Order: sequence, then structure tokens, then C-alpha cells
Amino acid sequence: MTVLARGARGARSEDVRRGNLSTLLRYVHVHGPTPRSQLTAVLGLNRSTIGGLTGELAAAGLVREEAGRAASGGGRPSHVVSPETQRVQVLAMDVGVTHLTVARVGLGGTVLSRRDSSWPGHTPRPRAVATALATEGAALLAEIGGDAVVVAAGVAVPGMVRRHDGQVRQAPNLGWRDVPLGHELAEALQLPVAVGNDADLGIRAEHVRGAAAGVEDAVYLSGHSGLGAGIFAGGSPLGGRAGYAGEVGHSLVNPDGLPCHCGSTGCWETECGEERLFELAGRPPGGGLAGVREVVAAASKGDAPAHAALLHVATWLGRGTANVVNVLNPEVVIMGGALEAVLVAAGDTVRVEFESAGLAALVQQVRLVSPHLGADSTLLGAAELAFDPLLSDPLLELSRRSAS
Amino acid sequence: MTVLARGARGARSEDVRRGNLSTLLRYVHVHGPTPRSQLTAVLGLNRSTIGGLTGELAAAGLVREEAGRAASGGGRPSHVVSPETQRVQVLAMDVGVTHLTVARVGLGGTVLSRRDSSWPGHTPRPRAVATALATEGAALLAEIGGDAVVVAAGVAVPGMVRRHDGQVRQAPNLGWRDVPLGHELAEALQLPVAVGNDADLGIRAEHVRGAAAGVEDAVYLSGHSGLGAGIFAGGSPLGGRAGYAGEVGHSLVNPDGLPCHCGSTGCWETECGEERLFELAGRPPGGGLAGVREVVAAASKGDAPAHAALLHVATWLGRGTANVVNVLNPEVVIMGGALEAVLVAAGDTVRVEFESAGLAALVQQVRLVSPHLGADSTLLGAAELAFDPLLSDPLLELSRRSAS
Repeated sequence: MTVLARGARGARSEDVRRGNLSTLLRYVHVHGPTPRSQLTAVLGLNRSTIGGLTGELAAAGLVREEAGRAASGGGRPSHVVSPETQRVQVLAMDVGVTHLTVARVGLGGTVLSRRDSSWPGHTPRPRAVATALATEGAALLAEIGGDAVVVAAGVAVPGMVRRHDGQVRQAPNLGWRDVPLGHELAEALQLPVAVGNDADLGIRAEHVRGAAAGVEDAVYLSGHSGLGAGIFAGGSPLGGRAGYAGEVGHSLVNPDGLPCHCGSTGCWETECGEERLFELAGRPPGGGLAGVREVVAAASKGDAPAHAALLHVATWLGRGTANVVNVLNPEVVIMGGALEAVLVAAGDTVRVEFESAGLAALVQQVRLVSPHLGADSTLLGAAELAFDPLLSDPLLELSRRSAS
Repeated sequence: MTVLARGARGARSEDVRRGNLSTLLRYVHVHGPTPRSQLTAVLGLNRSTIGGLTGELAAAGLVREEAGRAASGGGRPSHVVSPETQRVQVLAMDVGVTHLTVARVGLGGTVLSRRDSSWPGHTPRPRAVATALATEGAALLAEIGGDAVVVAAGVAVPGMVRRHDGQVRQAPNLGWRDVPLGHELAEALQLPVAVGNDADLGIRAEHVRGAAAGVEDAVYLSGHSGLGAGIFAGGSPLGGRAGYAGEVGHSLVNPDGLPCHCGSTGCWETECGEERLFELAGRPPGGGLAGVREVVAAASKGDAPAHAALLHVATWLGRGTANVVNVLNPEVVIMGGALEAVLVAAGDTVRVEFESAGLAALVQQVRLVSPHLGADSTLLGAAELAFDPLLSDPLLELSRRSAS
């Protein structure tokens, strides 16, 4: 079967067809069930071409077509093309300092099943994390049946990750250096595994279907024990030379401040990470997101140390965000993880400090917002990472799967 | 005359021709005199097409062709294509807090004539600067004769500039807000005038023909009274939403530090700008680059306050550069303006502090270097800005000039 887009010629028709299949599948993955008539308009292709492309994707089990309702104008009803959410899945994994989430996510970005673990108060060793991920992942794989397929796994880690092999180079808050997490998980799960930085995956998911959708310049701040930024600049992810960009948590902001896990002193995350909040609120370390929510709740009920702790962290969140905005001039800054709780509970303090510390021309242009995907931005970003090869070349990926 | 590139068809041949003319002119602008045979290889076009394109550019007075020497292999000598440096010019202007340079720059990036002014110790008002630029510019325009033409002017300013009209939104170290510099100069000089941020233009010039040539992720730090960064990320300039990105000088690094011109406290430039150096060295403010060089010379001769001042600024240059590198993961950081003198005189201190404050995986990947264009990076970047419309569409720009 040969599908030609307008203007395609000779040897390039195969490339054009692959590109069109990718564009169509990505569109329904992002936007959900879509009438064929809309796909015709969005892709700029004629009806028979769209029909051919959807037929191919349906035959491969990636989308399904159903008769839609008649248009209100009384015209012919258009077929609706939907992603095969139950049939085509990935494993998404989010590794934190005090929590771990593993989920099955279907094409279209729906979480089908999930397992959340937490280990308050201590930092896990690489071996324990890899084992937990493999065990939880295997348990989720055992759930699927019938004709469903899990095509890959994506993992979010709070650290610097080497792109090509998923090696975690440095994760100060986990105390990891050079952990071959991607390699080990691929062995254990017998799946392709891609590993990424948690904040990079947070902005990725929010850019696809969240608070940064349609925005060219945006920052996702991921705050837990540590603090990292995922950055889109000019519509593209900003990775830097090796993909390690965004380590804003280790910016020096207070030379008379506290020692940091990274070996330096006065890093931003020592002033507005979770552990600073717990310490000032008189609570034990390692409370994770649940602990942050407890401090916020206590502050709202008049607990003075909790209130002071919240204001300290909110003050430094505003100041440090001004630093980030002064450098990157984004349109949106999304505050994820524990930072969302701080923004919601003490947004006025965050904004006053932000506007006071930043340059007027820059701070006036920015919205400071919560993630639209809630606490799942990084998890869903890991799913996007895992889906990416399939979305980029649907039939090649499926043929690889069936050949292996 | 119609020149077709390989594969071009119908209505697009005009676009292809314009694109090829632009690519060819830009190549000789950047690389200087180039044999036709090399252009054939670089552009991937055949000899007759290259001949047609160079003929058009030569007829328009933008390049000239001369018989080259015979190749060493004894083959036919290839014509050499050179930019018409004396014939096609722009005005380039670099506005600092204590200096002002206006130059005529020829196609190919050669400074043909320049006028340097300085006003130690006081900050100029917008009106005085605009008048000085117009006066100096007019004097340079009066120098040209014969068939030479000045096609545009480009201006570098240490502040945030609105792209479309050259409005200087905020320049804390000049004390400017909302100065319509581009508009006023265009009126006075009767030329198209483009205004840009000094650091953005510094990285632009260094990326075209300097220390960042061929580098995808690079930062140019422009240090005088203030401190700004010009950023390339993934091979493209990083401007942010409105082009105001790179205001690293106003990142909070020391909350117990000094008040800043921007209204905040403890900004990076309060610790490593020129004024801090002068103050710690016991010298009067406003000494500019000449004053910085005096302090460095005094330090090398054993002047204790000068030496302590130099080490203080070098220490903070290293620390703040680590902040920038942690966020952007560049391959090269170019230290321009006064920072070059600090890097040359106290590079060990800069590097030790840099490596101590930054994350290992990031600082290991970076080279901290002097600008290859010396003190002229921003001036030459302003020239690049002025040349850009001509280089992007050579014949359209010339037809616009001759119609006006």
C-alpha cells in the first residue's frame, strides 16, 4: 500500500508516508478521539489520504475508527479516530528521594494502573531502587492480557542523566554517581528503557498537554528534597551540551547559608527544598510530599513554626525563581512537586519576593502557575519519553517489536 | 536571469535562488575570499549555478571575482570570490556606561574606521548618548565616497531591548527606562537602525567568527559596570519570550550584600562588576576598562588593595559562572569586557571557585575562554545585526535601498 501526500515525488514517498503516520498518531495521542474531518484540516491532507493513513494505523493496532455522530449542520457523520489506549502501553516510572511510582500508561496518556511506594526518612541505594522498579514493573506487566502490548519503559530521576544509555551521572539528593539504571532495567524488564531528568520530563508533559501547551518559553520547577528545572526555549527543550542543563537547585544564592549535598554551600535548594521546610517546622527529615502537606496544613491552623517555615521557603522560592526568570525570560513558570503546595498556600509571599528580586521588564511577563497534570507531570513525562520512538515512526517500531 | 538549484520546481525557483544568494553571500562574509571550487563543494551546487549566483552578486556590487592561483595539483585555477568590503558597509555602535565606540564595518567583518569616546566617572543621559551616536555616525558617513554605500546601523546597549523597534526597555547601569533609541537614531542618520543587547551581540559575533564558532551551546559574559549573558542553546540564540533573556548580572547571589542599580540587593554584578573592583582597590568609580587594567597592573606589582580587589572579583566571577553553567550546560563560556582582564590576571582563582561551586558533571565539560575578537565582540556583533537583512535576502535589500 502506498500513500502519497501532496507534492511528494519518487524516492521520498516512503519518508512522507512515515512522517504523515507519525503526525497523525501523535495528534490523536495528544488530543484524544478526533473526527477524520478534523484530521484532514489539521494535517492539510485530503480525505482519501487520511483514510489510508488511519487504515494503516488501525491495521497495526495503534488506533481504532468508529462512526461519529452526524455534524450539527446535517452533513455526513465523520469517522472518529481514537488512540488504542488499552492495547498500546508503556511503563512509566518516577523515582524520588522518598517515593517511587510505577504506572502503566496507555497511548493517549491515560494512567491505566499504578503502584506508589514511599520510604520516609532514608535515602535509597541504587541497587534497592533498581530492584524495586523491576519488581513493581514486572507486577504491572503481569496484569496485562489479551492483545495488549507494552512497548517500552520511561524513568524519571532527580539527577543528571546521560542521554544515550540512561546512565545516571550525578544525583546529589539520592547520593548517586554513575549508576547504570537504564541498562539494568532494560535487562530486568526485557524492554527498551529510556531514562530522563525529572524536571525535563515534567516540562515535557506539561508542554504536550498541560500548563505550557502552546507556549514556546517555559520552565518547570521540580521541587522535592532537591530542586531542578526543565526548560523549553524557543519551542524546544533546552538540554545543553550533554542534556544536563536545568540544575538551578545548585545555584549559589546564600554564601553564608547551609551545606548542600552537592558539596557546595548556600545552594538554592538548601533554602527552599523540603528538608529546609521540615527543619524550620521542627519536624523529622524525609517526610516527602505528604510531610510538606502536613506542614502547610499545620501552618493554616496557626502552628507558628510551621507558618514561619512556610514563609521562609516561599520567600526563597520567589527569589530563586526571579534568578531563573532573569536568565531565561520565560512566559510561564510551572511549580511542581512540593513547590505547588508552597505556591498554593503562600502564593502572595512567593509573588512579592519574585517581583521584588526580578527585573521589572521580565517579571511582568511571567505567569507562576501550578502544573495542570498535578503531581503526575514527571510520571507522564516519563511515559512520553517511552512513547516517543513509537510516535516518531509507528510502523518501524512495531516491526522491531514483532521481530524481537 | 533565472538560476535553478537542483531539485527546484516551478513557483519555488525564485525562493531557491534567493536562498542560494543568501547562503553564498553569508559564506564569503564569514569566511572571506573563497575559491569558486570551494563554494561549489560547500553549497552542494554545480559550477554553472555557482557562476550564475556569483555573477548576480558581483553585478549588485556585493562581491568581486578575481582569477585565483592555479591549484597545486596543476588543475585549472579557480576564481576567488571576495566580499566587497570597501564598497558595502554598516555603522556599528557600542554603547557602554563609560565608553562609546562607533565604527564603519565592511562586508566580511572588517573594521574600516572607528571613533572611541569615554566619559569616566559619570553616567550619560539618553539624550546625550543619542546625540553623540548621531554625531559620530554622521562623521563616519561623511568619510565614505565613490561608490561605497552604508546600508544600515547596528547598536549594542547594556540593557533589555524590544526587538521590533529598538526601544531600550530597561538598562539598570545606564539608569535608562523606555528610551526610543532605535527610532531616534533612524531619524537622525536616515538609515535602518537595529538595536540589541550587548551580550547577545557579543555571543553573535563570537559564534560567527570567534571562540564559539561551530559550538552549539555557548555563553558570552559581558562584564563592565554591569554583567549580562548572551546565550546560544542548541545552535540558536536564546532570547526568551521578548528577547530579554540573559540578565545574569541581576541574579541574587548574596542576600547580605550590596544594593544594586536594579533596586534589588546582592545581585551578582554587585560582587564582580567593575565598580566593586574599583571600590575594593580604593579607586574612584567609573574608571571603565582602562581603570580595570590599571587595577590589574597594580595588583601584579604588589599593590595589596588592588590584589585583594582582583581576587574578590575573580572569586565571584567563578562562583557566578558556575550558576550560569549549572543552568545552561554550555560547552564554552567566553568572558568579555572587563571579565577578560580578570580571567587573564586571576584565572586560577576563577577556575578553582568555578569548579568548587559547580556540579562536577557540568563544570568538567566547559572551557572558560577569552573572546577571540578581543574587546570588539559586541561592536562586531552590532555590525552583524546591521548586515543581517542584507545577508538574508541580498537583492531585496539592495532594491529597497535604491528605491528609497
